[in-house]
Amino acid sequence: MFLRALEWKGRSLRFLDQTRLPREEVYVETEDYRDVVEAIKRLRIRGAPLIGVAAAYGLCLGAFEGLKSEDFFSFLEQVDHELRSTRPTAVNLFWALDRMRIVWSVRNVSEDWEEVVDRLVAEAKAIDAENALTSERIACFGATLFEDGDRVLTHCNTGPLACGGWGTALGAILWAVHKEGKRITVYADETRPLFQGARLTAFELLKSNIPVTLVCDNMAGFLMSQGHITKVIVGADRIAMNGDVANKIGTYTVAVLAHHHGIPFYVAAPLSTVDPEAQTGADIPIEERDAQEVTTVGGVPIAPPGITVRNPAFDVTPSSLVHALVTEEGIVYPPFEEKLKILKKKRRGGHGSIC
Amino acid sequence: MFLRALEWKGRSLRFLDQTRLPREEVYVETEDYRDVVEAIKRLRIRGAPLIGVAAAYGLCLGAFEGLKSEDFFSFLEQVDHELRSTRPTAVNLFWALDRMRIVWSVRNVSEDWEEVVDRLVAEAKAIDAENALTSERIACFGATLFEDGDRVLTHCNTGPLACGGWGTALGAILWAVHKEGKRITVYADETRPLFQGARLTAFELLKSNIPVTLVCDNMAGFLMSQGHITKVIVGADRIAMNGDVANKIGTYTVAVLAHHHGIPFYVAAPLSTVDPEAQTGADIPIEERDAQEVTTVGGVPIAPPGITVRNPAFDVTPSSLVHALVTEEGIVYPPFEEKLKILKKKRRGGHGSIC
Repeated sequence: MFLRALEWKGRSLRFLDQTRLPREEVYVETEDYRDVVEAIKRLRIRGAPLIGVAAAYGLCLGAFEGLKSEDFFSFLEQVDHELRSTRPTAVNLFWALDRMRIVWSVRNVSEDWEEVVDRLVAEAKAIDAENALTSERIACFGATLFEDGDRVLTHCNTGPLACGGWGTALGAILWAVHKEGKRITVYADETRPLFQGARLTAFELLKSNIPVTLVCDNMAGFLMSQGHITKVIVGADRIAMNGDVANKIGTYTVAVLAHHHGIPFYVAAPLSTVDPEAQTGADIPIEERDAQEVTTVGGVPIAPPGITVRNPAFDVTPSSLVHALVTEEGIVYPPFEEKLKILKKKRRGGHGSIC
Repeated sequence: MFLRALEWKGRSLRFLDQTRLPREEVYVETEDYRDVVEAIKRLRIRGAPLIGVAAAYGLCLGAFEGLKSEDFFSFLEQVDHELRSTRPTAVNLFWALDRMRIVWSVRNVSEDWEEVVDRLVAEAKAIDAENALTSERIACFGATLFEDGDRVLTHCNTGPLACGGWGTALGAILWAVHKEGKRITVYADETRPLFQGARLTAFELLKSNIPVTLVCDNMAGFLMSQGHITKVIVGADRIAMNGDVANKIGTYTVAVLAHHHGIPFYVAAPLSTVDPEAQTGADIPIEERDAQEVTTVGGVPIAPPGITVRNPAFDVTPSSLVHALVTEEGIVYPPFEEKLKILKKKRRGGHGSIC
């Protein structure tokens, strides 16, 4: 039913180049971790959960290459560093690489390099599988927030392409429609500058036969003022312990608009997105990307040469504007801080499929 | 200093094709009113005040052609109808054509067709000249709202290209900088779908040596949350008697954001933009434009084929979110209704240059 964004092929990683969608479905298969680094940087692989899985497999590719190097562990250190340097905001990247690091860098690690590689591949597969189950749980829980007839606005892309499995915010909509038979209409923000909403969310919803209307980001307020939106759901790239949410640029604007119109604003994300090091949104680094993403579209310039540009890739929505967080452990309502602490401490893994 | 958006050449109209900016400065000179109709529809000529002036000259071109027809006045009726059908929201179009209509259609109009044409040309020139003076007064009054060091967000394009003369909202900024020596930094929303902010506002400000930073529409909230914006000023396409403002899609979102952050939100527009027939914003028709404006950029598709799209060209900002209206008669503060009534009744025309 869904495009497979990422697939481990034993010694190589096959991934869909999401920058080419929806015009072309181009798959890249590579044994070189540098291609994974480049793909994450260029958003060929994107979506916070998927970035985590891709980084884990990227480290595996690096490990295979490291077997041929003089110092396997120094090589892995370098690979880890390059993968961590791709994108600063989505914490799932660091979370996945931290899990991988436990396999290869803690004391008493095996000196049998081949064995370490096997363990790394096993761990990456575990992260991948867990991610799919996690997104299934998020989708299932999130679906309960919707009623028959809802008209839901979403921003950016949070479906199977972004997460593998069902997806997070979009996964909840897909589940509500396909598993629960609710009739839901989706309004998809196009999501400038890279049009993930127009290119990917619209594409996934069309493929899923869910009614979807594409709008420019600046039309969401108009739609709300006209009563066209009943709920908003988005994903997250990093969540602070107080419930502040970093997500794709424009999310904060949507949250303010929802607040102004009394429309519930939900965030769906795995607990791996919650960063115990970030007490509030102010602790979350915001990636600033290249000006060219704003000044050109598909190679066509839309601004005068030499113009100064701001291009923050994310913004922070304060927890006061968030009605609920949908996680794989259930729906969390404000105040978030104590509940997130408990959930983060809870032993993770081992969930079977539910619902 | 500024590009000339429109110029009457005696028997023809020369205009800048604004859809080609900033890449190319292409001027079109035509004797055919149908080219003016097409240019307004396609936004080659755009900006509420400029549309009014263009329609007046368009009617003159039609009148010249009408001299060759069997029924001059029926022909003018047809030309008037076609010009009125170009765009529904900007009221300056109807205001200008109403003024022209007084010249050609009231009782006891001369049966000397040539004389009527002369009078029409004179009236169009008067509208043009008055428009320039009006925009000068708006710019001058609006400039008083700014202080040295202000960082001003604007949406869409409201400078010389949109208005002739100084412009309205952007005119106030230009005046504050160039006539009053205030240091002002401008943040320009790109203004999807047609990028008037990126293509035109950024271009005009660069030409004027005013520091300008281009952002996507969905970044305005982030900028405000970070304290980067001290004031917002925009133009208007139609203002209801209660002060509700129809302006380029996305304006309402900016107004809600400004309100949420306690940032003053100003609207600058000529009194011809105030529609005595519209009691509130609900009485203002909102133009819905072609889906292709959203789904393609410069011919490049950015969404899957067959996607459903909403493309309202305008939205309505309720007067409760407007801190002041800048008009050619001065700055109007809320409550607006009584003051707008008085200003609309006041005898107009005959203003000399001020400030």
